[in-house]
Amino acid sequence: MESIKYFEVSEIPEKNIHIFGRMGRQKQPLPLLFNGSGIEVVVTGTDLWIELETDSDFHEPWVAYEVNGAFMGRQMLLPGEHNICLFRNMEPSTPKRIRFIRELQAMSEDDRSKVLIKRIGINGEFKEVPEYKRKIEFIGDSITSGEGSYGAMADVDWIAMYMSASVNYATFTAKNLNADYHLISQGGWGVYCGWDNDVRHNLPSVYEKVCGLSSGPSNEAIGTQEPYDFDSWQPDVIVVNLGTNDATSFNQPPFYNPEDGKTYKMRLNEDGSYNREDELKIEDAIVSFLTVLRKHNKKAHIAWCYGMLGSDLNLTITEAINKYRDSSKDNNVSFFQLPNTTMETVGSHMHPGFKSHENASKELTDYLRNKMGWLE
Amino acid sequence: MESIKYFEVSEIPEKNIHIFGRMGRQKQPLPLLFNGSGIEVVVTGTDLWIELETDSDFHEPWVAYEVNGAFMGRQMLLPGEHNICLFRNMEPSTPKRIRFIRELQAMSEDDRSKVLIKRIGINGEFKEVPEYKRKIEFIGDSITSGEGSYGAMADVDWIAMYMSASVNYATFTAKNLNADYHLISQGGWGVYCGWDNDVRHNLPSVYEKVCGLSSGPSNEAIGTQEPYDFDSWQPDVIVVNLGTNDATSFNQPPFYNPEDGKTYKMRLNEDGSYNREDELKIEDAIVSFLTVLRKHNKKAHIAWCYGMLGSDLNLTITEAINKYRDSSKDNNVSFFQLPNTTMETVGSHMHPGFKSHENASKELTDYLRNKMGWLE
Amino acid sequence: MESIKYFEVSEIPEKNIHIFGRMGRQKQPLPLLFNGSGIEVVVTGTDLWIELETDSDFHEPWVAYEVNGAFMGRQMLLPGEHNICLFRNMEPSTPKRIRFIRELQAMSEDDRSKVLIKRIGINGEFKEVPEYKRKIEFIGDSITSGEGSYGAMADVDWIAMYMSASVNYATFTAKNLNADYHLISQGGWGVYCGWDNDVRHNLPSVYEKVCGLSSGPSNEAIGTQEPYDFDSWQPDVIVVNLGTNDATSFNQPPFYNPEDGKTYKMRLNEDGSYNREDELKIEDAIVSFLTVLRKHNKKAHIAWCYGMLGSDLNLTITEAINKYRDSSKDNNVSFFQLPNTTMETVGSHMHPGFKSHENASKELTDYLRNKMGWLE
Amino acid sequence: MESIKYFEVSEIPEKNIHIFGRMGRQKQPLPLLFNGSGIEVVVTGTDLWIELETDSDFHEPWVAYEVNGAFMGRQMLLPGEHNICLFRNMEPSTPKRIRFIRELQAMSEDDRSKVLIKRIGINGEFKEVPEYKRKIEFIGDSITSGEGSYGAMADVDWIAMYMSASVNYATFTAKNLNADYHLISQGGWGVYCGWDNDVRHNLPSVYEKVCGLSSGPSNEAIGTQEPYDFDSWQPDVIVVNLGTNDATSFNQPPFYNPEDGKTYKMRLNEDGSYNREDELKIEDAIVSFLTVLRKHNKKAHIAWCYGMLGSDLNLTITEAINKYRDSSKDNNVSFFQLPNTTMETVGSHMHPGFKSHENASKELTDYLRNKMGWLE
Repeated sequence: MESIKYFEVSEIPEKNIHIFGRMGRQKQPLPLLFNGSGIEVVVTGTDLWIELETDSDFHEPWVAYEVNGAFMGRQMLLPGEHNICLFRNMEPSTPKRIRFIRELQAMSEDDRSKVLIKRIGINGEFKEVPEYKRKIEFIGDSITSGEGSYGAMADVDWIAMYMSASVNYATFTAKNLNADYHLISQGGWGVYCGWDNDVRHNLPSVYEKVCGLSSGPSNEAIGTQEPYDFDSWQPDVIVVNLGTNDATSFNQPPFYNPEDGKTYKMRLNEDGSYNREDELKIEDAIVSFLTVLRKHNKKAHIAWCYGMLGSDLNLTITEAINKYRDSSKDNNVSFFQLPNTTMETVGSHMHPGFKSHENASKELTDYLRNKMGWLE
Repeated sequence: MESIKYFEVSEIPEKNIHIFGRMGRQKQPLPLLFNGSGIEVVVTGTDLWIELETDSDFHEPWVAYEVNGAFMGRQMLLPGEHNICLFRNMEPSTPKRIRFIRELQAMSEDDRSKVLIKRIGINGEFKEVPEYKRKIEFIGDSITSGEGSYGAMADVDWIAMYMSASVNYATFTAKNLNADYHLISQGGWGVYCGWDNDVRHNLPSVYEKVCGLSSGPSNEAIGTQEPYDFDSWQPDVIVVNLGTNDATSFNQPPFYNPEDGKTYKMRLNEDGSYNREDELKIEDAIVSFLTVLRKHNKKAHIAWCYGMLGSDLNLTITEAINKYRDSSKDNNVSFFQLPNTTMETVGSHMHPGFKSHENASKELTDYLRNKMGWLE
Repeated sequence: MESIKYFEVSEIPEKNIHIFGRMGRQKQPLPLLFNGSGIEVVVTGTDLWIELETDSDFHEPWVAYEVNGAFMGRQMLLPGEHNICLFRNMEPSTPKRIRFIRELQAMSEDDRSKVLIKRIGINGEFKEVPEYKRKIEFIGDSITSGEGSYGAMADVDWIAMYMSASVNYATFTAKNLNADYHLISQGGWGVYCGWDNDVRHNLPSVYEKVCGLSSGPSNEAIGTQEPYDFDSWQPDVIVVNLGTNDATSFNQPPFYNPEDGKTYKMRLNEDGSYNREDELKIEDAIVSFLTVLRKHNKKAHIAWCYGMLGSDLNLTITEAINKYRDSSKDNNVSFFQLPNTTMETVGSHMHPGFKSHENASKELTDYLRNKMGWLE
Repeated sequence: MESIKYFEVSEIPEKNIHIFGRMGRQKQPLPLLFNGSGIEVVVTGTDLWIELETDSDFHEPWVAYEVNGAFMGRQMLLPGEHNICLFRNMEPSTPKRIRFIRELQAMSEDDRSKVLIKRIGINGEFKEVPEYKRKIEFIGDSITSGEGSYGAMADVDWIAMYMSASVNYATFTAKNLNADYHLISQGGWGVYCGWDNDVRHNLPSVYEKVCGLSSGPSNEAIGTQEPYDFDSWQPDVIVVNLGTNDATSFNQPPFYNPEDGKTYKMRLNEDGSYNREDELKIEDAIVSFLTVLRKHNKKAHIAWCYGMLGSDLNLTITEAINKYRDSSKDNNVSFFQLPNTTMETVGSHMHPGFKSHENASKELTDYLRNKMGWLE
């Protein structure tokens, strides 16, 4: 058995490494900015190692990996340097396909949060990673962050270990369709405001930056707050799974925003329906977001996919999509409802569990297959 | 064992017989006008017989029945008088709950189509039928008519035996929710036009009559073309499952209407999107139909439930619902997408099969439970 | 459309009609002696009719049928002549494959029980029925008679309508394997004695007659009590699903046999285990039955398949099989346990329901595929 | 938040820590000798750490853990000292139940293989671990070692990462029944000989030692080769899942045993049946093993549970059980067939995958519930 030789990510020829997730200007060490961000390699040799540097405060990153498409391991990474062996003693000549991903979402509340891939160690050769011919971008909230995809039904802590990309309708759907993917999501955030009426917590505000969710000096040093280069990766489909937190905000107390000294509250009418003025704030945000999405993604089909935690906003979202459609004459946009989470499919802290993510990915896969003519 | 005594439907006290489906002025013999129309009784005694008179031309009626909630039999009925034994030699003192229903939709193309229940024969006593506290009206097309719910995948004939109410998301949902139901549906029809661009084939045109679908002297003699008395049965929920045929019409050749000498065609734009003028025809029809529904059903929640054969019309339908909502200020209306039929769930002639109806009923049951607060 | 022409069963060329189930010397009218007994034809034309004569006392026969492999109808037949339309108005040139079967077991307690197929009426042509290359004989008790495969969980009457061949692991397995089948079964009977210790109720006592279960002048007139001609149909596999009632007998009161004036009782030891003497009675019966089976079926693989209602007799049955194996040097025999029925899979009166029959057929199909090398 | 305080396993009161798996005389550091061996604690506080020392040569140990009954993490441990954080930043006052287990079987081919738990670190309190009232011992081969429970279908390497106790019918069954468990298993071994005819590879040869599978100085130093103290843990049920490799040996080439210079081969007759002499070797081994099991476990019900990779040995195993039953008069023994693995349920290298383990645990749970009267 040859000894392990280490390669910086930047040393590996592009055709020999596939990178999942948005990237900024830094490739070495390679930052994994979002949940689902990661790498895929196909290697010969007996062993594979991955060198990482991680940091975090409250929300430590978790990682997971697959061997030949099958889930193999999942673990917490505390701040520091890591050299993790992903497999050893395998038959050397057979190519092994390894996908290594970040489980934890871009952590807007943890400035130190960081996962950097420094080097890959192998004692064989890098082989070509089969090219993904399809690309899907998923933009979402806690559902797309996989909150509750791990954990027992009674668990209610809001901590990193319950979030994932390994049990996630988005990665499942991409895998079903043999597609490359980007995930951009944040638990608790909406298209207009967060679950708690915090109007700063909306995905559109960060969409145009590389990873607007990740702040702090070390994140900013690697360019997370810089404008994202949309030309570098043009998706075929954009799935927007937002609205769940906007809907919740109507049932939450007012939010005092220390930044502008104002108090915000989405209001219900006496009959329980949405205050029209507030509903229109969401609609304006959707119209505006669709406009931004189209600006940067000229050809992508935009599918607003919503419903895994209730479908209360169906008419609000579609009214906004129709307004956008009407004003822009852009018909390359659709609305698709995802199956709701039930007591049989729920995970921890009342979020979608494995079965809910699986159900949603089945329906979404079928939808995109037909919509995009991706018939095999 | 006592001998069988026969009772006209009109002789059975109301609390001892439950009638499913819309009724006109005639109760004796009792016409079963729609698929799912039928009766339910709870009886002691060893045997139960049902006396029927049926007629038909091309599309013979089928019937099915349940004993204590479990499917037991299903058969074709050719024109004539029938006296069918539904059970015999059962333990006499135990009450048996029997539901007997028409499988075939109201048959707009078969003027002779008729199912009349004349008498029920028992050798025990009629017991009280537990009251249904919830009421759901389903308005639909071939999906709600259960087309393809029986039959092999390769079967493509358009005949009565493939239609049913015994394998049907609507009756399944009503049973799940312990609800009384009305079904009003017609294969091939839409909310604006039929699958073949025939603008006469829209459900709104028949909704206000007892059974506007059933014509011909014998049907008219029992009042099918008379105005329906909406006060006699006010649903808690109206499920409208229409749009599938309107969507299909865009891909079909023009239709020449012999009645007005005009040709009709829903048009596609060059990019495959809907011609806006034609799309608005559907939307107008929806707004208008919602207005009619509300006029006759002041308190019902109206849920437009669509998607079992594709969801192409999601944005069209919701745009119309939102227009209605905006102009009427009526917020007691919602849109809910039903799960699509796949190759794993399809029945005959590319319509929903058993599993598709079961899936749809699960999601719809969950939706209505939450929406209506029907939590047990 | 041509008018219907009727053909006696005996007039239809053998290659154009497949008969399921054991037959005696009478082919016209064709008696359907067992549950699952029936016919299969492939016909063109628009309509198909079947002329039957039936009789019964307490246990009226039920029948069911399939069109192109899909379940279509199921109904009770009271004594008399019937002319049943199985389909009408179908596309005339397309061949339709119809399977029509008896649901009710050979009824040992109802001497009048009778189902005779007299004629088939069509307005097209009989086509060749694809030949079944595999043959399976199933010998069993209430499980193989499909008791409880229809009906609600709370139903406990012991009546014909709860029995079937249309929901039955045996017919499911045969269909999965594209095999012809014979069913020979009787509810309550065992390999040594019935559930109630009645030693007359054992399948071996009737196995060598055409249909030893069916007595009475009219049955005997068609030869049910005559020796069966085993050469006429040599199965590839014999599945024996017996033992469930023998096991039950240990927990039942003694049985007084009026025929010999003796009382019979299978005894338990104080620790709940089987009295060895009585256990050996079952084993002797099994050894003897295996010997008889082999005598008449030289080449068949004999698989004792047991366990759908508990597996208490596993060691008893296998001890007997091993004794047989040891004394006969016949190794072409096996034991296979079927999955037990649970509260999730139970049907009526605590017998296997649809899901239990489906589960059992899946495991049995897999077993026979491997055992017999029936790999496609 | 208080700082973490570390406790040696031996310092934790017995009621506050549950140990899964056989133990020898050493409790500190606590060796995890078998797959499924591990600990369970219930703690308050925000964080939990576990200090381990591991060693291995070719087959590195893997570990997995659960939080409140839900799978959370799984990773490889290379030789050395480890301090692993199992959770952090949780709500301090809520008790958390943590189960940490070894995934890798006792590794008979890797003398260095070792997993030692040294200390548990918490910043809260140990609470009482609810007592397990039921105890099950599982004795098996690769199936019970969870071989192939992880990995892609095409994977064929025989390496540690594909084995587990986290996806395993044995641990699933114990959890379903709320039972404590011991696992004693070895891939490739049989009750008489290994898959390759190596007669040294039989579980009975190691059963009476603490962990006879683990050799080498460091293992022996902690007493693995010493006699096991059966009085320390008396199971209610012993599940023996052996025979799969004995069956395979008939189809493998002869094995030359360097220890005695002899060649071994289980032979087939020309007709493919087992050579009777060789079959009897297996039966003798079974009778003898049952005798040993009974000697050490006076009251346990012994259930031989077999069939997840074919049921070829059903008659052989049961013949042996019946011989044992006959000679010992011990009736507290049974045979239960587990569902076979199919292409839908297979894992890697043709071993049971997740679905097969899940199916088997469902049937086994149901069986033991009924057999033992463990009705809730």
